[in-house]
Order: sequence, then structure tokens, then C-alpha cells
Amino acid sequence: MKKPLISLTSDFGVQTQGIGNMHGVALQINPNANVIDLMHGIADFDIQSGARTMETTIHLPIGFHVCVVDPGVGTKRKGIAIKTKRGDVLVGPDNGVLIPATRILGGCDKVVALENPKYQKLPVSPIFHGRDVFTPAAAHLSTGVKIEELGEELKFEDLVKAPYEDAIIADDQIQSEVIHINKFGSIHLNISYALWDQFNPNEKIILEFNEKTIECPVVSTFGEVDKGKHLIMKDDYGRIEAAINLGSFSEKFKIKQGDKCVVKKNSSP
Amino acid sequence: MKKPLISLTSDFGVQTQGIGNMHGVALQINPNANVIDLMHGIADFDIQSGARTMETTIHLPIGFHVCVVDPGVGTKRKGIAIKTKRGDVLVGPDNGVLIPATRILGGCDKVVALENPKYQKLPVSPIFHGRDVFTPAAAHLSTGVKIEELGEELKFEDLVKAPYEDAIIADDQIQSEVIHINKFGSIHLNISYALWDQFNPNEKIILEFNEKTIECPVVSTFGEVDKGKHLIMKDDYGRIEAAINLGSFSEKFKIKQGDKCVVKKNSSP
Amino acid sequence: MKKPLISLTSDFGVQTQGIGNMHGVALQINPNANVIDLMHGIADFDIQSGARTMETTIHLPIGFHVCVVDPGVGTKRKGIAIKTKRGDVLVGPDNGVLIPATRILGGCDKVVALENPKYQKLPVSPIFHGRDVFTPAAAHLSTGVKIEELGEELKFEDLVKAPYEDAIIADDQIQSEVIHINKFGSIHLNISYALWDQFNPNEKIILEFNEKTIECPVVSTFGEVDKGKHLIMKDDYGRIEAAINLGSFSEKFKIKQGDKCVVKKNSSP
Repeated sequence: MKKPLISLTSDFGVQTQGIGNMHGVALQINPNANVIDLMHGIADFDIQSGARTMETTIHLPIGFHVCVVDPGVGTKRKGIAIKTKRGDVLVGPDNGVLIPATRILGGCDKVVALENPKYQKLPVSPIFHGRDVFTPAAAHLSTGVKIEELGEELKFEDLVKAPYEDAIIADDQIQSEVIHINKFGSIHLNISYALWDQFNPNEKIILEFNEKTIECPVVSTFGEVDKGKHLIMKDDYGRIEAAINLGSFSEKFKIKQGDKCVVKKNSSP
Repeated sequence: MKKPLISLTSDFGVQTQGIGNMHGVALQINPNANVIDLMHGIADFDIQSGARTMETTIHLPIGFHVCVVDPGVGTKRKGIAIKTKRGDVLVGPDNGVLIPATRILGGCDKVVALENPKYQKLPVSPIFHGRDVFTPAAAHLSTGVKIEELGEELKFEDLVKAPYEDAIIADDQIQSEVIHINKFGSIHLNISYALWDQFNPNEKIILEFNEKTIECPVVSTFGEVDKGKHLIMKDDYGRIEAAINLGSFSEKFKIKQGDKCVVKKNSSP
Repeated sequence: MKKPLISLTSDFGVQTQGIGNMHGVALQINPNANVIDLMHGIADFDIQSGARTMETTIHLPIGFHVCVVDPGVGTKRKGIAIKTKRGDVLVGPDNGVLIPATRILGGCDKVVALENPKYQKLPVSPIFHGRDVFTPAAAHLSTGVKIEELGEELKFEDLVKAPYEDAIIADDQIQSEVIHINKFGSIHLNISYALWDQFNPNEKIILEFNEKTIECPVVSTFGEVDKGKHLIMKDDYGRIEAAINLGSFSEKFKIKQGDKCVVKKNSSP
């Protein structure tokens, strides 16, 4: 029998007792699970980057993926578990952080509220649902508990909206948005590989941000341009990335997360 | 058979080869253990914060918990293993860092010195007992080795004292101390939930630090006060915490770890 | 049956989705492996420190050790797997980062190029071979796949050279080099314990760096000198370290990684 996989993602930063506590709680409930850290370096309360990271569960085995980017902990926001069509269950707060990953994992099969105290660590701390609600739910599911036992079924369309939607093509332009800036200053757009291929970029494309217009060669890796030069390419996680080879795109061009970006083909010869 | 749990805590910081080496040594001795990181972000040599973190083993499965906050490595300070009444074994230096956790895990059942070279990784580096003494002891215990085999039995009361004691109530005031300040600047006091409930705080309480007097509403989560306002509440690990909603209590009021704090009820109507 | 061990090392920094993705890919292929992080805090693209960290696999169980310090990803540099005489397999880029560890693990038994797409995660991202080439190779090997199946056999002597060689003794002096500076500012030299013992240092030795001459007492741990004083000793990972007790050697004496250092015995009485 395959050992189930539980992944943990949070904005807790450098290895804290919070992460260790979640590992312990998961293994208490299911000592046979493989529990891994997907990412804990998300900026405090950054739902957009959290959602973006959860998209990368596509590279993990089908499993139980917990996300604790949860500025609303202790308020009336619901805890939820989303069964995806791929077979994963995503567990976390109903604040939109799980929606983009749900789409990438094939869409929502079923979603429930986390209400049943039988599958919580009691007493539940009002300020740490990651340990007392989300991780226990994932761990119990990994032992074979049915998702229906966790609580009332919800409608996917009633959940809090995603922190970003996918880019769209209109008039042969892509209307996109910066959804993440990584530690090197590369910007990641809400453009999927599929939309990019459909857009069918030529050798150079033009990015329009508010006042700025930037022409970028389309490449497949950093080294195809000289040091300090900018480029655009498929990133390593299913999205499109604009970067500078050995430099910071976001710093050079003063781009922030959330900025809008229109992508055009260069029509000049 | 349940897989035994080994947890590792240290002041080694961002994932270093030291942590990886301890994982490897543990799994060499017991490949069937679940080895987790409880916390490695403790400030260098900060025994008080280390002790505080070890208290949170109460949320982990009964297991073998290693702590390497060890400014005295290479000196004559003993290495010890403490069997707790809950059934855990705490392993680390005899510098007080394991004492508060021992109390929270039900008290000391037995304590021994780590002397038997059969359960060490030889040759023992004089500067890395975490890898060569503490982790091997925990891993061998997790395979069923009896604690008596590790070395001479010691008396719990002869161990180096804890870096803090529990707060006490006198004259309807709590005499307390700041034992930890977290990354958000929230201060954690040596007041247990039980003492707090016994103190029976009313809606507002007064904190007296040296020259400063601060009135705090008693709440159960940050969001109950406005942004920038301070509060006091049960933290997520068994202690009492004073904080500012989306701000830093320790910075605003210039509080340091180790500061004394007298807690009073607000007698004005 | 013992569970195989897979270790992961990189320059990815604080827990990123890249590390989590590699864990997931490894467990997808071999859910029964123990997958650990050896180190992810290596400076960006620092092949020398990466090589130094890989040397510490000597303290891990015989296993499958992946190293992703890979400034040339996406170029024509090969991916390789080196079977060592101890029985480990080292997996990573052919840029020298695996060579010092190979020597410490007994030398090279066989080395192959990572070419067989059957043992890769397809499609291979041109910018993340850690996830799509190196980790899958290690994980497949851990399930019993033969190293010959991964690709063409190479000659060890044709691989890219190591980022440092071992120090040598000539005229009763050691010609050495600084291969790593740790977070405390201690410098680590390319001098093995064995060479050091052969050199047979007396109580004080002299380090000559370019313009500077520093006399150091030979000790076995920091505490043997007063706070702020410098020393030289065996480090905790098989090399020789010069340090200041509770201070920074590299800062005080302005030493950089890569600096040459001549080690002499103090001939004065």
C-alpha cells in the first residue's frame, strides 16, 4: 500500500515551532503518512503568493495539501476541504487561497466545511487553526475518513473568490497580472503555458505596465540572453515569467505584485 | 506498530548541514522513526527561548525530543536524558533548557547522564554533541534501548535550574516574567493557562513593567481589537501573550526578554 | 528491509516550493524512502560551499545524495550520477560540486550521464533539473534501478574538476585554501584531519595569508581560549577551522573564501 502524502504550506517563515507542531499533529493521527513541507517562506498574510504556491501541488503526488495563510483566523471565516478531480484534497481557510490550485488539479469534485470536532485537535486555539483544524482534517482524511464526515457540503461557487483569475486573450493581446515576485526579482504572470501557446508569441513580445513599455525576447532559459538583459519565458511551475539574467526585473522596472500587464506581439519587423 | 517520533530543536538557523546530519544519524540508527524538525530558529545560545519551545512538545506525539541549544558544548556540562511521566524522553545538555518541558509533560520519571559510548557516534566531536551524543541517544531509545543503559542515574533536583520558573499569584497579583518575544513582537509570559484561569482576570487588566503601566483588554484573538491596539490573551502554546493587532508590542513599549511584569486586575469600574 | 535514504542539498534558501517539489517527486517515485534535507542555505551558485557540504554526507547513512547548486542549468553541462566505493550515489550537475564528496566516500566506482527520459519527470523544465532530472534519478535508483540504466558511462577523470583540491604538505608547510566561511565567520580550510595529524602541529601554529601573519593556539574546542581570542582546531566535519571564540575570524582578519593560506609550525620556543 502506498503511503499517503500530506504537504504543509504556510507564511510561518524560518522553521518555527508552528511548523513542527503541525508535523507532530499529523503524525500523531497518521504515523504512516509522509509529511512534507511544500513552502513556508510566503510573506505574512500574502494570499496571492500562497495561492500561487498551492498551484505547484500539481508536481506532488496526489495527496492532502494544507495551506495556512490565514489572516482571518479566529473570525467567522470558514475552514474548508476541497476534493479535486485529480483526487487531492486541499485544506485551509475559505479566503480564496485554495481556488487556483483546485482549478489546476482538475476542478472541484466536492467541498465541505470543517465543522466536526471529532476531526479537530481539542481545545481548538482561536489563533492557530493550522495545527488544530486544518492539519487534523488532512491527517484524518489520509487514514481513510470520508470527506463528508468533516462537515456540511458547500457549493464551490459560494466560496470566497480566488486572489487572481487566469489571464485572458482579447484582440490578440493578453490582459494579465503579476501574481508573484520571487527572491531574484523575477515576476510571474497569471498566464498558463496553455494560454501562452495559444497566444503563439513571436520572437519578441511587448509588455505594457501602466506607463512603461518593455520589449522582451522570448527564450527558454536565462542563459540565452547576456548578463543584465531581460527576457520572458515559461517558468518552472506552469506560468510565464519575465526576468533579468543574473539581475532583478522587478527592481529595474519598478514592478509590484498585483500590477496589471498587457502582453502584445511585436508587429515591427 | 506505531512508528516512533523523534523531534529535533536547535539554534542552528536556516537549514544547515548540522540539521541534515542529525536527521541522517537518527535514520541510520532507526530507519523506521519519523524524524521531524520542531524548531531551529532559536536565537544563538538562547536557553530561555529554547526551553519555551520545548514546552510545545506537549502538542507532539509522545516521543524522543532532542534540544541542541548548547553554549557549553565541549565543557564539563553533562548531556542528559529525562524520561517524563507522559512517556516522552527529552535529550540535551544539562543547562536547564529541558526543565520547563519536563514539568509540562507531567514531571520527571527518571534522568540519566549520557555516558555510554555504545550509544554515541564515535569519535565524538567536542563541538557537535547534537549529532554525536544527543541524537544517537534519542534514536537508540526509539529502537527500544532502556534509558538506564545510557549512563548513571542522576537526581532531577541536582540538574541545572530552569531558565525561568512559573509565575505565582500573591496578593491577587501575578508576579511574572517575559520568557519569549516572537517574530511579530508579541511577548509571552511565564503564566500558564491554569494560573490565568485561577487568577480569573476581568475584562481589562494592568501590566506593570518597571516604569511603565499598560492597561490591556482581555480577548481571545487579535481581531477583537482595532489595528494598532494592544491586547492580552491565551497564546497558542499554553502561555499568556500580550500583543498588538498587526503591530509589535515589544517595540512600542520597549519590552525585552527577561523583563519582570506584575499583572493586576483593573479595580476601577 | 532498511528504508533507503535520499538527501537533498541546494542553494534555494529558506524553505521554498522548489524544495517541497523535490520531496514530492522523490516520494511519488519511492514512497518508502526517507527523504531528508541536508542543507539548503548555500549561497546562490556557490559551488565551493556546495562541494564542502556534500562532503558531510560521510555522516549520513549510505544513500542517494542530490545536490542542486547548478548555475549552468539549461546549458549543455551534463547531469551525472556517481557511484562511490562506500556505496552511495551522488547526483547533480557535472560542475565539480560532487567531486570532493566522492573522494571522501572512498572514490568513484562508476559514473554515468543522466540521459534516459524513462527516469526523468517529463516534460523536463529547462530551468529546474533538480526536480525533473536529479531527484527522479536518485529516487529511481533508491527503488533498485541499476545506475547503468540512467545513461552512458563516463570517465571520472573527464568530469569537470573539483572547486578545490586537498591541501598538500611541502617543506614542512601546508599549502591550503579557505573553502568555506560559516555563519559565525569561522574559516574552513581544505586540510583533512589525516593531513593535519600527519603535519603534527605543535601548540601554536602560524597562518600566512597574503600580507597577514596570524599565530593561533591549537585547541580542541572554542572555550579553551578567552572570549574574542582566535584559535585553530579540527572542525565538526573532517576539516581544519580557524575561529574566534564568540567572534568572527573572517571579519577581524578580512579573510575571504578562496584565499590561500600557508600553515607553518611556530619554531620559536
